Amino acid sequence: MSVQSLAHVNGAIVPISEAKISLLDWGFLHSDATYDVAHVWDGHFFRLDEHLERYYAGMEKLRMSIPYTKAQLTALLLQLVGQSGLRNAYVEMITTRGMPEPGSRDPRTCSNRFFAFVVPFVWITQPHQGLHLAISQQQRIPSASVDPTIKNYHWLDLVMGQFEAYDQGAQTAAVVDANGNIKEGPGFNIFIIKDQQLCTTAQGVLEGITRKTAIQLAQQLGLKVKLEEISAQAFRTADEAFATSTAGGIMAITQVDDTVLGNGQMGALTEQLQNAYWAMHTQPEHALEVIYE
Amino acid sequence: MSVQSLAHVNGAIVPISEAKISLLDWGFLHSDATYDVAHVWDGHFFRLDEHLERYYAGMEKLRMSIPYTKAQLTALLLQLVGQSGLRNAYVEMITTRGMPEPGSRDPRTCSNRFFAFVVPFVWITQPHQGLHLAISQQQRIPSASVDPTIKNYHWLDLVMGQFEAYDQGAQTAAVVDANGNIKEGPGFNIFIIKDQQLCTTAQGVLEGITRKTAIQLAQQLGLKVKLEEISAQAFRTADEAFATSTAGGIMAITQVDDTVLGNGQMGALTEQLQNAYWAMHTQPEHALEVIYE
Repeated sequence: MSVQSLAHVNGAIVPISEAKISLLDWGFLHSDATYDVAHVWDGHFFRLDEHLERYYAGMEKLRMSIPYTKAQLTALLLQLVGQSGLRNAYVEMITTRGMPEPGSRDPRTCSNRFFAFVVPFVWITQPHQGLHLAISQQQRIPSASVDPTIKNYHWLDLVMGQFEAYDQGAQTAAVVDANGNIKEGPGFNIFIIKDQQLCTTAQGVLEGITRKTAIQLAQQLGLKVKLEEISAQAFRTADEAFATSTAGGIMAITQVDDTVLGNGQMGALTEQLQNAYWAMHTQPEHALEVIYE
Repeated sequence: MSVQSLAHVNGAIVPISEAKISLLDWGFLHSDATYDVAHVWDGHFFRLDEHLERYYAGMEKLRMSIPYTKAQLTALLLQLVGQSGLRNAYVEMITTRGMPEPGSRDPRTCSNRFFAFVVPFVWITQPHQGLHLAISQQQRIPSASVDPTIKNYHWLDLVMGQFEAYDQGAQTAAVVDANGNIKEGPGFNIFIIKDQQLCTTAQGVLEGITRKTAIQLAQQLGLKVKLEEISAQAFRTADEAFATSTAGGIMAITQVDDTVLGNGQMGALTEQLQNAYWAMHTQPEHALEVIYE
């Protein structure tokens, strides 16, 4: 069986090279869209229900809808991945505003559009590696402008932060708020560990599913998790730190700007959490089997 | 000769129905793009050079480029519009980041992409009509997050403001900053007039070409123009107010929330500026003739 990236566009499954959206769709022209990304690991969706929950909540907040129930969407995504043959995959589902009637600029005249695609699993970094991160001067778009609990494509702040990080020889960036507190990176939440206690930012960040999973796993290990602001100083003086993302799970952060964290290797608690994260993928309550053709 | 909307995609001119972008282009997935919109009126581009100036400056700030000089792009756009047969048109040029190499999330591996399209001229409102605008609680994305002088598609704040405005029976919205000062609306800058003096917001807004033109025209009429913050109170107690946009030019704002401005009709100075704006379209130094086939 051939293995290939696929997309669901206009109700049909097509090769990824044919996965296109109209230039006139407000999903592009106004970034008026919401999305979610789930992953498939060893032929099983991981916590798909959580992703669907957030995706549908985001659509509601943006006054969008798609013609599928969660059960129908689940079936659609299972079919898409099954047909792709990809056993470790990154699965994105998207709702766009669509196009207003010709000559109109009224979003109420738009028919929302649904897209999905499946590509090979994407890693921000490999699990055994540590990330070198730079704290950017770039400020994350605040919640008062764009509700970060609606997963959205407003990423120019993150992309510019990423370029800044490359300029400084780092691999990726953390963007900040107006007070200089650490918010998040391009596609990931950030945790620090100090004196066996975890801390991750409560406000102004995406409520990541991997972030939620990391919190649950830490609590199961008997660790305390604080949801509060992380100052740049606290970040640099942390015992350990890690990033969480569907694109790679729990990934150690081993250097912040010029400061090496701990001994420059993945910290012991981070490693425990990372192992627990991947172990969770085989637990039936979190794993939904894909049937490959 | 048939008249139709057209696009320039992948170096070829295609009908607008075939104007598509890959779902995987970061221009869509990260709204990592810049653009500009010029208009053609009675077969002539209006102030195209100004739009190209801003467009190329935006690309440079985003570390993007296209394989055309300004002169080459001008020729390309003239050809596109000429072929469309549209004598009053809205012409959008777009640069997207493109797609990173498979598996990569590094924007430096992307080849930037160029798109353009021409559609019939779009009006936010007809010139003789007045806009009823609602002041939104929604805050415009601040400059510290996304540089507003780079024309960009980060519009969710504006779209949500627009929905709020509809809920309140208004036609469009003004979004504010953290201090409640008026910033801009969906696709337009805002001016108020009090005691024969114009005022428009200096900071945190798009530096609109029509805004710039309105300032120049006001100065030619001997009116003073202040570039400073506009409070909600100043907006509601203005003698006159207007919106500026390529999509309609200079358009009177005649109601703010429940407050009717002046007598509820276009103000006298606004009308003078509007007339001067359209008169400017026939001045050879601002008009570039399209050759229709």
